[in-house]
Amino acid sequence: MPYTYNYPHPAVTVDACLFTIQDDRLKIVLIRRAAEPYKDVWALPGGFIHLDENLETAVKRELEEATGITGFYLEQLGTFGQVDRDPRERVISVAYFALAPAGHVTLKADTDAIDAAWFDVNELPDLAFDHASIINKAIKRIQTKIETSNVAFEFLPPKFTISDVRQVHESVHGRPIDKRNFQKWLTGSNLIRPLGEKRGGSHRPAELYELKPSQRRKSFD
Amino acid sequence: MPYTYNYPHPAVTVDACLFTIQDDRLKIVLIRRAAEPYKDVWALPGGFIHLDENLETAVKRELEEATGITGFYLEQLGTFGQVDRDPRERVISVAYFALAPAGHVTLKADTDAIDAAWFDVNELPDLAFDHASIINKAIKRIQTKIETSNVAFEFLPPKFTISDVRQVHESVHGRPIDKRNFQKWLTGSNLIRPLGEKRGGSHRPAELYELKPSQRRKSFD
Repeated sequence: MPYTYNYPHPAVTVDACLFTIQDDRLKIVLIRRAAEPYKDVWALPGGFIHLDENLETAVKRELEEATGITGFYLEQLGTFGQVDRDPRERVISVAYFALAPAGHVTLKADTDAIDAAWFDVNELPDLAFDHASIINKAIKRIQTKIETSNVAFEFLPPKFTISDVRQVHESVHGRPIDKRNFQKWLTGSNLIRPLGEKRGGSHRPAELYELKPSQRRKSFD
Repeated sequence: MPYTYNYPHPAVTVDACLFTIQDDRLKIVLIRRAAEPYKDVWALPGGFIHLDENLETAVKRELEEATGITGFYLEQLGTFGQVDRDPRERVISVAYFALAPAGHVTLKADTDAIDAAWFDVNELPDLAFDHASIINKAIKRIQTKIETSNVAFEFLPPKFTISDVRQVHESVHGRPIDKRNFQKWLTGSNLIRPLGEKRGGSHRPAELYELKPSQRRKSFD
């Protein structure tokens, strides 16, 4: 390698903010660290990249190892490189956010972690490194994107009611939204189409919808 | 350093897309590389980070070295880490975009570059590494942000006419915009305020405006 750069190199990690909605709350996966630094402290799932893998490959690998979850929406959030953010050495972290449908997402802890759990974003524990500010930025990004893109539907199963979509918006923003205005906006938005099916045998069964195929977004835009 | 990670580390660079508007065209600074790889090929200004400097410090240093320009708006664009993007070794680039006011911005080439010049974004030369795709992403980001934020004013001097602002939007999008609708939107937007001054001694001197102080954005949001 004739042009190899001779100065010291930093270490590079990927870290992931994986969100879902449970019990009408926005939740994030954290792992409890099994080793120093920050042993026993909660942190984002992540780890050092391998030199022969792309960044997205690395973050998918780390997320799957830490949580067992695959098939999520994934997008780069930003790169965090403050000189003193890691006590080991200079470590630059490329952070991603990932969105998984609401429901029973089963977690498994791997060898780097002694525990993995979902946390309400409003009730976070003490966090390792600068992970609190990474999470803060991720939440703001999702709050912006939910108004300007179709990411709300990444939290939902393929068939949903209008009330389900409103609930996602309410969970992400952490406040109630006017039902009538939301329904009017969504049904007029050209985003969804009725399936001609209803859910539930209750007094007032709700109409089921799906996202129009032309509206489905790809990751890594 | 007891916890230093023993695996091989990648090299990390910062690269900058510095845009301005000249002659009603969106332009970007490129440098012609003085050394291998891609000797004599045009590229984004940038370089390897130092281990003791933050990412923003590194990109400001590289931009000032390559162009002599300081005081620009700066924001992280994204991190580019495809395994084979650099023939030397694994190099991960944290890319930024910067915006400078239209006008006569003087460039100076440094030791890494045999030349530095402004290029119309629609008439780019062959580019080193994956810099064409970094620039493509930066242009799309600016086209989105100009509709949802105040970045248009980063291209303008403190005093400007409504026609100046429309010209910035037209240059960024590369197409004309309806004058009357734009004026109506901008004067109703709560973004700007009239200065009670006019520009030019022409037949119809134009009203001068400034961005309201509450609307000024900080970099690194």
